[in-house]
Amino acid sequence: MTTAAATRQEKDLLGVRELDHTLYYGVQTLRARENFYLSGRCIGEYPDFIKALAIVKHAAANANHRLGLLDSARHGAITKACAEVIDGAFHDAFVVDMIQGGAGTSTNMNANEVLANRALEHLGEQKGSYGRLHPNNDVNLSQSTNDAYPTAIRVGLLLAHLPLLESLCHLAATLANKAQQFGGILKMGRTQLQDAVPMTLGQEFQAMADTVSADLEQMRTLIPATLCAVNLGGTAIGTGINADPRYQAIAIEELAALSGFPVRAAPNLIAATSDMGDFVLLSGLVKRTALRLSKISNDLRLLSSGPRTGIAEINLPARQPGSSIMPGKVNPVIPEAMNQVAYEIAGNDAALTLAAEAGQLQLNAMEPLIAYKLYDSIRLLSRAVRMLDRECIEGISANPDRCSALVHRSIGIVTALNPYIGYENATRIARLAQDTGRTVVELVQSEQLLSNALLAEILRPENMVAPRSPLTR
Amino acid sequence: MTTAAATRQEKDLLGVRELDHTLYYGVQTLRARENFYLSGRCIGEYPDFIKALAIVKHAAANANHRLGLLDSARHGAITKACAEVIDGAFHDAFVVDMIQGGAGTSTNMNANEVLANRALEHLGEQKGSYGRLHPNNDVNLSQSTNDAYPTAIRVGLLLAHLPLLESLCHLAATLANKAQQFGGILKMGRTQLQDAVPMTLGQEFQAMADTVSADLEQMRTLIPATLCAVNLGGTAIGTGINADPRYQAIAIEELAALSGFPVRAAPNLIAATSDMGDFVLLSGLVKRTALRLSKISNDLRLLSSGPRTGIAEINLPARQPGSSIMPGKVNPVIPEAMNQVAYEIAGNDAALTLAAEAGQLQLNAMEPLIAYKLYDSIRLLSRAVRMLDRECIEGISANPDRCSALVHRSIGIVTALNPYIGYENATRIARLAQDTGRTVVELVQSEQLLSNALLAEILRPENMVAPRSPLTR
Amino acid sequence: MTTAAATRQEKDLLGVRELDHTLYYGVQTLRARENFYLSGRCIGEYPDFIKALAIVKHAAANANHRLGLLDSARHGAITKACAEVIDGAFHDAFVVDMIQGGAGTSTNMNANEVLANRALEHLGEQKGSYGRLHPNNDVNLSQSTNDAYPTAIRVGLLLAHLPLLESLCHLAATLANKAQQFGGILKMGRTQLQDAVPMTLGQEFQAMADTVSADLEQMRTLIPATLCAVNLGGTAIGTGINADPRYQAIAIEELAALSGFPVRAAPNLIAATSDMGDFVLLSGLVKRTALRLSKISNDLRLLSSGPRTGIAEINLPARQPGSSIMPGKVNPVIPEAMNQVAYEIAGNDAALTLAAEAGQLQLNAMEPLIAYKLYDSIRLLSRAVRMLDRECIEGISANPDRCSALVHRSIGIVTALNPYIGYENATRIARLAQDTGRTVVELVQSEQLLSNALLAEILRPENMVAPRSPLTR
Amino acid sequence: MTTAAATRQEKDLLGVRELDHTLYYGVQTLRARENFYLSGRCIGEYPDFIKALAIVKHAAANANHRLGLLDSARHGAITKACAEVIDGAFHDAFVVDMIQGGAGTSTNMNANEVLANRALEHLGEQKGSYGRLHPNNDVNLSQSTNDAYPTAIRVGLLLAHLPLLESLCHLAATLANKAQQFGGILKMGRTQLQDAVPMTLGQEFQAMADTVSADLEQMRTLIPATLCAVNLGGTAIGTGINADPRYQAIAIEELAALSGFPVRAAPNLIAATSDMGDFVLLSGLVKRTALRLSKISNDLRLLSSGPRTGIAEINLPARQPGSSIMPGKVNPVIPEAMNQVAYEIAGNDAALTLAAEAGQLQLNAMEPLIAYKLYDSIRLLSRAVRMLDRECIEGISANPDRCSALVHRSIGIVTALNPYIGYENATRIARLAQDTGRTVVELVQSEQLLSNALLAEILRPENMVAPRSPLTR
Repeated sequence: MTTAAATRQEKDLLGVRELDHTLYYGVQTLRARENFYLSGRCIGEYPDFIKALAIVKHAAANANHRLGLLDSARHGAITKACAEVIDGAFHDAFVVDMIQGGAGTSTNMNANEVLANRALEHLGEQKGSYGRLHPNNDVNLSQSTNDAYPTAIRVGLLLAHLPLLESLCHLAATLANKAQQFGGILKMGRTQLQDAVPMTLGQEFQAMADTVSADLEQMRTLIPATLCAVNLGGTAIGTGINADPRYQAIAIEELAALSGFPVRAAPNLIAATSDMGDFVLLSGLVKRTALRLSKISNDLRLLSSGPRTGIAEINLPARQPGSSIMPGKVNPVIPEAMNQVAYEIAGNDAALTLAAEAGQLQLNAMEPLIAYKLYDSIRLLSRAVRMLDRECIEGISANPDRCSALVHRSIGIVTALNPYIGYENATRIARLAQDTGRTVVELVQSEQLLSNALLAEILRPENMVAPRSPLTR
Repeated sequence: MTTAAATRQEKDLLGVRELDHTLYYGVQTLRARENFYLSGRCIGEYPDFIKALAIVKHAAANANHRLGLLDSARHGAITKACAEVIDGAFHDAFVVDMIQGGAGTSTNMNANEVLANRALEHLGEQKGSYGRLHPNNDVNLSQSTNDAYPTAIRVGLLLAHLPLLESLCHLAATLANKAQQFGGILKMGRTQLQDAVPMTLGQEFQAMADTVSADLEQMRTLIPATLCAVNLGGTAIGTGINADPRYQAIAIEELAALSGFPVRAAPNLIAATSDMGDFVLLSGLVKRTALRLSKISNDLRLLSSGPRTGIAEINLPARQPGSSIMPGKVNPVIPEAMNQVAYEIAGNDAALTLAAEAGQLQLNAMEPLIAYKLYDSIRLLSRAVRMLDRECIEGISANPDRCSALVHRSIGIVTALNPYIGYENATRIARLAQDTGRTVVELVQSEQLLSNALLAEILRPENMVAPRSPLTR
Repeated sequence: MTTAAATRQEKDLLGVRELDHTLYYGVQTLRARENFYLSGRCIGEYPDFIKALAIVKHAAANANHRLGLLDSARHGAITKACAEVIDGAFHDAFVVDMIQGGAGTSTNMNANEVLANRALEHLGEQKGSYGRLHPNNDVNLSQSTNDAYPTAIRVGLLLAHLPLLESLCHLAATLANKAQQFGGILKMGRTQLQDAVPMTLGQEFQAMADTVSADLEQMRTLIPATLCAVNLGGTAIGTGINADPRYQAIAIEELAALSGFPVRAAPNLIAATSDMGDFVLLSGLVKRTALRLSKISNDLRLLSSGPRTGIAEINLPARQPGSSIMPGKVNPVIPEAMNQVAYEIAGNDAALTLAAEAGQLQLNAMEPLIAYKLYDSIRLLSRAVRMLDRECIEGISANPDRCSALVHRSIGIVTALNPYIGYENATRIARLAQDTGRTVVELVQSEQLLSNALLAEILRPENMVAPRSPLTR
Repeated sequence: MTTAAATRQEKDLLGVRELDHTLYYGVQTLRARENFYLSGRCIGEYPDFIKALAIVKHAAANANHRLGLLDSARHGAITKACAEVIDGAFHDAFVVDMIQGGAGTSTNMNANEVLANRALEHLGEQKGSYGRLHPNNDVNLSQSTNDAYPTAIRVGLLLAHLPLLESLCHLAATLANKAQQFGGILKMGRTQLQDAVPMTLGQEFQAMADTVSADLEQMRTLIPATLCAVNLGGTAIGTGINADPRYQAIAIEELAALSGFPVRAAPNLIAATSDMGDFVLLSGLVKRTALRLSKISNDLRLLSSGPRTGIAEINLPARQPGSSIMPGKVNPVIPEAMNQVAYEIAGNDAALTLAAEAGQLQLNAMEPLIAYKLYDSIRLLSRAVRMLDRECIEGISANPDRCSALVHRSIGIVTALNPYIGYENATRIARLAQDTGRTVVELVQSEQLLSNALLAEILRPENMVAPRSPLTR
């Protein structure tokens, strides 16, 4: 075998380049690799996105075939290659950097080239025999980067959001289980880090569970509603130039069938081609959930602070030694990691905001960054939710005695006596407790402000943690 | 009248203070004014928020009255005072800074004090005669800051979003009118600031119109869906401590009736008390619209660049002289201002993100900043949309000759010839045009690649700006 | 007096307008007011900025006079008007919105018009007699908005940063005083909210003091270094078109003399005209300090959490009643307000980031927003620092018994025994303490691992809160 | 060889784990890998950081050896292992995720374990024989994560900033070369995208060059000033507990010698342990440069817009085909990628802002995210600057005829005539030109307002692009 045989030549506007013959990608991908060495993250690291690219190419090939624009042989070869990529093959041939100029042309051409070369193999041809089947003329037929690429981003995000929903669903269930487990544990509620009024630890965890569930429900409807309007068929700028008038409807029908998502045509293809507003909203939605989880993580860290000099109402499961210098120290590492993921996602939203604002006229050249940040945010959040759920929340235990002791030593329970001893007496008792270090109950008893029976009744947990009709003496 | 008569004394936990007798607010508001001199913006500058506070107090008073907790005299006086504030009176008595510690207690007490003192006047009493009618015991009855304040924020935002919807609706109509007016003007589309393919100026404006309409539609459903779940009745931490079990339902029923919005109880009052996620989402939604309008403004500035050395396809109406040194210069000042409003709103979203993350346990002490930023963003956007609409877009005119000349001199129209002369010929012609400075039409004609009739047919505007079936020679 | 006499007419490129004769501003300011009703904050609310505008106009007038371009009468009148504005007069005539299109032209013209009309009065003329002394031809002589406006922003920020330095200086001293006051109080240090090793409360406050001092020192050198390079003399785009070649040096010399700041010419006036990088850096610097103060505020809220169910090592002074429903509750309202100011400043930085990125070619049209956000950030921070200092930190008291009890009950002190009983024993003791609830000292004594004398020596505060040579048994 | 021989057992607080015997990392790293699968980016992907960790461990080992705490054999083995890592070996053994809980403990332990196991090999021992040489007791001796880790971050950033300086330096030179090359090309300056006054293309590029140089100069002093103060020796919380009093000075002396950077002790080690302010400032500095380069990129895209329907004053080198549908289209892909890098860096700054604010008491548990974002920002910027320089700016060519034609057709040159024909005439001529489409020169000549000789003299490029003394007729 000669050296020459190990490579092939490909040509584009800028001239001829030599490529290793094992490579599925072609000259345009090669140029993009050379141009963009930035994030070091290539598109192949985002499998949902790569699958979505193949789904879009598959749908387009089907539409072209149905319209008589693509013969059966090439259609068969292309769609077979697409199916392989959808099944997870050849993702390592998707090598361009997630940060790239050209509004996604390099990503689109990476897909066109890999699919063309794999299809050529299915046709029994050598890679690079573009005379037989061409990346642009056949794989990209009836498409422009400007419609195929945004459509693929949307389909890929639809794929990517499913594990996020699943992980949120599981987390909500875990939190609800904990709420049930901790239902009988009375503890102090705190506002502004100051002692407030009693609640149960179960109520505290149920509030977390309900917050997660609420996000989950809204994501379930809002994400598909936001992503399903695609601009496939708009070609270069949304006017559909050079496309068959029947193409758009057929391509989108195929896309819906292949992806399993109810994608539909965007109402204005020119607007849809350059508009990034849907991605801004989606990023906002993901950020919202991340911030809620960050708040929950902050609370878990506060509630488990200690073991001796903090709040110490709950224990997080130990996941790793906490210190090389302090014996026995265990840290809340899982919530801390969740916090950082939330901050990262907020940063991604900020980057995406700048990129979305930078659209000009009929396109937004910064769309690759927008895709990068969104895929990262959604994946990071999925992973972090799973981590928080399995490595932390499932293993949380309570310190009921500590919880109870804090309630009974607290001054805050005086609020519950308000309706019986009056605001003035309550305030006086509160101050006396604070000044003397004595408990509210002791003081009320010593002053005989209430009968012991009524006092006990008022301070029964179930009477302090919900609205109630006035008790009678 | 003696000097002493010009003031009154009020007392709180921290002691006694002297207040000018004309003041409707009381000692707690006075302390807040002294504590917080920060933004210099007081809550009274946000009329929708003040009205909402009065609506909430009105609803609570009605509920308390219906439950027999508030007698008719005091109920009548309080609700009369509320009605006055709802009608716009006494807003100058709402003086605490929008940035305040205390999670809104100062705002809530400012409302309680002003309403109590005004109600006292209706009862024929002096301001400060709290023995007769008390800010806390009567106006704030069955409430805590922690439920009344977030509820008022929501109701106020519901009020505030109406003018935004109205201004967006009008802007969409103006843009659509322009689209119709410019429907017949052929121009070059541009992607990545490079010549792409033709479109009409009408299509370009219709895309803007549809973008605005899409935002409007989503706001119409999503904002009420996001804001209508209120935590009134949750009292201190959402457990409803010290509230009558029947209170919540009645108070919310009254609130719905008084506000005209379909408010309902939040599903988990403990979660609702500390959660800021709805506000994060709302801010994201407003930011999205602002960014879309910023993109539109950028486009208007690009399209009107010139008059001689830019794109100059459209003219913005002159609003003010553009330069003190350059005679005759007129600048795109209105879109520039719109851009800055969008940046401000993005900054508000960033501030709100930090504040939302900072919630702890049963409350988020940073809620005042969140309210401040949201009210500002919505009002700024309303004003800016109106400005962009009336001061700029309504007066835009087109330069059809310039548009047409640019199309016919462009190389981009070669794309339309692709299906007829082939990609290879098209590429060659494109380069030749670029190298020689000649037009595509000249070159095609000189090479006799197409009949003049077919060439003319292909290049008819209606054939270039939409999908079309292949033309026959 | 007739009605007609109550107004005057002024004319610009767009036509003639009627103005109330009492108004010092003229037609261009009027148009700007009508165009920009956005933030509702007018430039007159930023006195440092207005003074700086007058200083720049004064310097330019002096330079023009020295070059023979402005006669003595007009020079005298203009500089007299400038001096009045510098002294605080007529600020209410500066009415344009801080958010404005036109890259500051409206602000510059507002200054030109007010100064011209006031100068006319000094010349015994009616306002509006621009034939005698003209806003553009005389007040703005040798200037463009594009050099006068950015120069004024810089001079105004130099003025505005002085109170910030002063307030930081005072805060550092207050913190250092507290550190001295609390020097003898041993307490637990905490990392990741988990008990770590002992320190003194004095060390904790001294760390805060040193953090503030470090910021102060860096601001003292970096802010002037960043702001003193001005582009006055660059006129329209930095090329100095239409300016006398001697003008720049003289004008900047005058500016230095009048402002008292060592301003100098920017090295490249074209770069300086459009570049916003200095403002980005300044905003970053201010944000850094704000975040440090936010962290300090978070710590104060943690350390004062309680009174019964939190850390409760320190007490913040009560500034206002904390709750309408919970008797005796006092909240950390001052640190909470400081937090929110920090978030606002971070949001301002985000807005400014977008604006700085939006510069195009020879100018950044978004400079008004940049100025707005920077002036706001600096002023907010000054006010908040003063608030934090006077209303909170000065009044902080410690709970030494609580601090001490937490140390002695803590498991963390086992770290100090490490070198004497070995890591293995230390870990065992730590676990035993955690499991049994007993103290480390008890366990060590009961196991006779160390002599009581050595144990006491090791646990002497001064031996635990600093490096030390090994103690001998 | 049996299966058992292929693994080793390691033990920590949580129990015993089996590790593949080829692995250099140990049980704590294993746990961290399992806990944190988030960003998918491991610390080994940041070579400067890994080298810095080894430098810190090397310095500590030297100090411990000099103080007699570490014998020569272990010192020799550890430092030999450190030297190997500094030379680039074993980086693939650094496997923990950049996003991690635990405030860097996992990173520190990853370093301790890898270095210990490699040192054991140098001692002829099996990996895992920690009885002979221990990750904590020997490699981590006299250190805590809380001092070693932040110190390593700083040293690593110092290493990482050198290529950034180098790439900025080269870029500044390239821009200055272009400025010289384009020195003679007269063109229109534009403010607010509207025609302003003439300048040379050389001046435009020199402004870019000077902007980059200014950033470079400030980075050269500010980055070392910001990063060189390290907290090594502070151990757990900055009090230096359990460290020899002589240790800190010696360790830092060794660190300076090994790193080549003038590191010094932070003035307050307690402050330095938890404070992230230096990183916030550094991030702001990097963001500033990124935004400046984004603005330059925006300008390059504007100036090269076209080829026929834009500004088209310059040509960017073609780097890759621009479109699959539009023949001959070439896009400004390199500046577009630079823009996106700038947005990413701004997003990183936002994430870091949240993380910096989240510090609590004696530590900031979010430091790993801060390190991650800073390393990424600096590396991304280095790469992007090199890309912009080599792949774009070096190859830029000018279109002098186009530049010249735009100047001579422009109305803006009327500004230069101002001093000779008066503002009133100039304004009239400007309008007439705009209305009739004629040039300013034609109109001035036809009205005989100036002699042809003087007109020519005024409009000589060198007279329009700099201040000048009045020309005489």
